[in-house]
Amino acid sequence: MTVNVAVLPETTPLIDEAIRSAGATQVALSDARALIWTGSNQSGFPDQLPETLEWVQLKSAGVQPWITSGTVDLSRRWTSAVGAYSEDVAEHALALLLGSLRQLTVHARAKTWLKSETWNTVRSLRGRTVAIIGAGSIGRAVIPALSTLGASVIAVNRSGRPVEGASRTVAADGLESALLDADDAILAGSSTEDTHRLIGAEQLRALGSHSDGRTPGVLINVARGDLLDTDALIEALRSGTIAGAGLDVFDPEPLEDGNPLWDLDTVLLTPHIANPKHSMEQSFARLVAENLRRFTADEELQALIDLDRGY
Amino acid sequence: MTVNVAVLPETTPLIDEAIRSAGATQVALSDARALIWTGSNQSGFPDQLPETLEWVQLKSAGVQPWITSGTVDLSRRWTSAVGAYSEDVAEHALALLLGSLRQLTVHARAKTWLKSETWNTVRSLRGRTVAIIGAGSIGRAVIPALSTLGASVIAVNRSGRPVEGASRTVAADGLESALLDADDAILAGSSTEDTHRLIGAEQLRALGSHSDGRTPGVLINVARGDLLDTDALIEALRSGTIAGAGLDVFDPEPLEDGNPLWDLDTVLLTPHIANPKHSMEQSFARLVAENLRRFTADEELQALIDLDRGY
Repeated sequence: MTVNVAVLPETTPLIDEAIRSAGATQVALSDARALIWTGSNQSGFPDQLPETLEWVQLKSAGVQPWITSGTVDLSRRWTSAVGAYSEDVAEHALALLLGSLRQLTVHARAKTWLKSETWNTVRSLRGRTVAIIGAGSIGRAVIPALSTLGASVIAVNRSGRPVEGASRTVAADGLESALLDADDAILAGSSTEDTHRLIGAEQLRALGSHSDGRTPGVLINVARGDLLDTDALIEALRSGTIAGAGLDVFDPEPLEDGNPLWDLDTVLLTPHIANPKHSMEQSFARLVAENLRRFTADEELQALIDLDRGY
Repeated sequence: MTVNVAVLPETTPLIDEAIRSAGATQVALSDARALIWTGSNQSGFPDQLPETLEWVQLKSAGVQPWITSGTVDLSRRWTSAVGAYSEDVAEHALALLLGSLRQLTVHARAKTWLKSETWNTVRSLRGRTVAIIGAGSIGRAVIPALSTLGASVIAVNRSGRPVEGASRTVAADGLESALLDADDAILAGSSTEDTHRLIGAEQLRALGSHSDGRTPGVLINVARGDLLDTDALIEALRSGTIAGAGLDVFDPEPLEDGNPLWDLDTVLLTPHIANPKHSMEQSFARLVAENLRRFTADEELQALIDLDRGY
């Protein structure tokens, strides 16, 4: 039996194909059992949903605003895109890490041959130890590439339950020891009350301090801007406490013109593009196809939102 | 029995440790059976070597100048460092590839938030097809990371003999078909008469042309500058025939001030630092330790230079 599905505010060829591939039929909202919301936020979302609507698929991985506004209700199932974009964000973390170690900001701004200045200061990732702070779907997705490139991983998560591929996993209270032991760190955790400004001056000092003479490493943030105290970061970069930072997220965001981060040669920054539009459309269409298949087969949906858990 | 080994023009703590670990003894050149040459070129190399010297270990991966000058003789064994630095160079190729796809030059030069300009044009590597032109030790070393990141590989080598990890290997005469099928290309081959300006206007057109509507990809060069026709590259970048280039090597080198490559936002360039000094010292010390072990045990040395083959 074909499932009637509505797509709002507008469909795309990829979503049309996902619906076709799942054997579903596109209809108006009033006739639909499922709604695929292709908007990136709540703007234009229907004030009232038909009582017969059983399931809403959202496009965002972070749905806190949808929950806070009361839009996500208990009358039907709601699914997010949590996990669907993790591999692309993990890939960006790797790009920023390699790019920071190889001083791509200095090189991209240079107008002359700087080999004698930088050959001695650039670093390979191979042989380094990387702390992954918050080993959720993004953090776990970056581990295979780090391992393939010969780096080892210390994972930090809430429980301390061992993370596959990490040489060591520590619980949140082991953060400082992880930073002391690691060369570099990747912030990959979600933003909650517990993690607000998790990384401040003290943690940056731990990351940059090595009793065995290793030079300070770099900090990467692809998670949320507010995991990091921006002023403390700028101070740590200026003083050389850490060697560099690769940042895709900021607090507040967008990063305002004139912020010192724009000018520091030790900062490699991108404007929240870790999950490129092109890949996002493809990944979202794959999730829609899979969840439509599950909905049709009466299986549990992927990325079901749990109001108590908050995502 | 301990092997007497000389180190010239000067030793380092890492080389001292390699010699100790192999159970060898450091002596003056006149008393030595083996010479470790730690210089990056022939400057200061002894005019005459003792007849009793059985083996010379050089630090360079490319030893053409040593052969051309007649320094490498048939009176003893000579070894190069070919292969010893491949993993670091392969890592740099990956950094340039990810960095080009994610437009790090545009972002490193920006002083304002460009998300609306670049979110739609940056690309993930995942799902792309990468042609590796010249699948020697560097080319083969980049394949595992590409695979881990979800890209597939078309390898191009002289023989067409299948390369491990590549979805397809083609011989040199299949270069154009490989470029047509691939999204992006990495030049990783050695510089010989056959490969001089292997990539010109025609090959760049093939790389940028996709009958199925894919957008043009990027070209990476970590091998030798003269594999590529620089003028044709600049023209292909200006016309949008290809989307970008990541370059660590140039022809001539160093790249001269004022060359248009310094100014193009679609170019990510580094000044021949793919093999960072820090890693090179470590990798060379590992090679020295291994070859001293083999020399002592009368086993075949790694990276033995073959004058007929030319490396």
